[in-house]
Amino acid sequence: MSICMPDRTLKLTLAYDGTRFVGWQRQAAGESIQGLLEDALARLEGSAVTAHGAGRTDAGVHALAQVASARVTFAHDGPTVLRALNATLPPEIRVTAVEDAGPRFHARFDARTKCYRYQIANLPVLSPFTRAFAWHVPEPLDRAAMSEAAIVLVGTHDFAAFQSSGTDVHTTVRTLTRSAWMDDSGLLVYEVEGDGFLRHMVRAVVGTLVEVGRGWRAPAQVHALLAGGSRAEAGATAPAHGLLLARVEY
Amino acid sequence: MSICMPDRTLKLTLAYDGTRFVGWQRQAAGESIQGLLEDALARLEGSAVTAHGAGRTDAGVHALAQVASARVTFAHDGPTVLRALNATLPPEIRVTAVEDAGPRFHARFDARTKCYRYQIANLPVLSPFTRAFAWHVPEPLDRAAMSEAAIVLVGTHDFAAFQSSGTDVHTTVRTLTRSAWMDDSGLLVYEVEGDGFLRHMVRAVVGTLVEVGRGWRAPAQVHALLAGGSRAEAGATAPAHGLLLARVEY
Repeated sequence: MSICMPDRTLKLTLAYDGTRFVGWQRQAAGESIQGLLEDALARLEGSAVTAHGAGRTDAGVHALAQVASARVTFAHDGPTVLRALNATLPPEIRVTAVEDAGPRFHARFDARTKCYRYQIANLPVLSPFTRAFAWHVPEPLDRAAMSEAAIVLVGTHDFAAFQSSGTDVHTTVRTLTRSAWMDDSGLLVYEVEGDGFLRHMVRAVVGTLVEVGRGWRAPAQVHALLAGGSRAEAGATAPAHGLLLARVEY
Repeated sequence: MSICMPDRTLKLTLAYDGTRFVGWQRQAAGESIQGLLEDALARLEGSAVTAHGAGRTDAGVHALAQVASARVTFAHDGPTVLRALNATLPPEIRVTAVEDAGPRFHARFDARTKCYRYQIANLPVLSPFTRAFAWHVPEPLDRAAMSEAAIVLVGTHDFAAFQSSGTDVHTTVRTLTRSAWMDDSGLLVYEVEGDGFLRHMVRAVVGTLVEVGRGWRAPAQVHALLAGGSRAEAGATAPAHGLLLARVEY
């Protein structure tokens, strides 16, 4: 922070292939998206910069449009910052937009809704071109049952049964405004939008819905999970590499 | 070859991400698609098997549907062969179909037409999700001029100007039945179909057409290149990683 230059808060939009990273959040070991972005910002700033991400994506999870905020003092315009950051970041991480936000803007606390996309390759043979971005489920799935179960999740519910154990949050109640399966470019895609998500929640939901699709559980069981079910009663956590943070709204 | 089991000729369809391979053809060093496929077939056969590919894709070039032929004696049915090969091959290479062909079927000599697809990311920022499968050309391109130049190539012409030097072929005359640019999922895509292609021909054509798009040469210059131009007069060879062998017709 300098005396002459006023603080700015930047709103950065990022796309990344999360395959080889430890996730959004800086860790003791391994490369994180946050760490690499903060290092790239620090090169421009000349001193340390903190970046806050809207969603703290796990190791292996991707983003089509993650949003981060960062307070800086440098005066370069948006296109210059975008080019400079992309020149420093590895090609798996791209800054796709740089805007000036209000001085109090915080990418995580100000997010109204987030939209995640979970991609399943529901085919006998997994394409080499989507294998890094889709979970391969070769067995046939009952898509009508999966859609029926997905709709149950829309609304305000206690999602405790879909939260990884060992996490400590104020409340496990969240509101989902969209929860639906669709076909897109040969993939079976689950889209979910809500005001917030618990740790591993989307992957636990997908794992449960796929068990419905496999006929291992009835769509109605999702009601019971929302009415006081435990994590052990819900389905297995779907793999990280099928998940993409698709959009954040403010 | 056994006395009791009649020979079979298999027609194998393959998709591959060519990024880390030395190309279709077996080389002294490095992993090739042909080498890995032949090794996987040899495990089933119990002895060496030769596989012929319809297109000898270069290092880094991908395939949506390469076709290979191989003579074998084992009796497993198509689905069993498909599963066994995919269990042995790395995930970057997938066998997508296995059929019994006529005994004299040869994937290269019997191919009537081949269709290649060249993908360009004509955007300021290259997506992490397409970077392995598209050439990044951030500058604006004159797409009308590129389409005008592409159409000139349709028909029977001497493509010597679009052939890598040091190759030795009987004739450099080829017939193209399609040569066109289109937009597909945010990418600028060149589709070209013909009865055969010279070494590096598609990449030399794309390099030349992009130079037309950049305004470095006029569409009419393509006529001159077909009427006795030299390789030095055509454009630079476009990078391998934007090219995909899309389809082979018999």
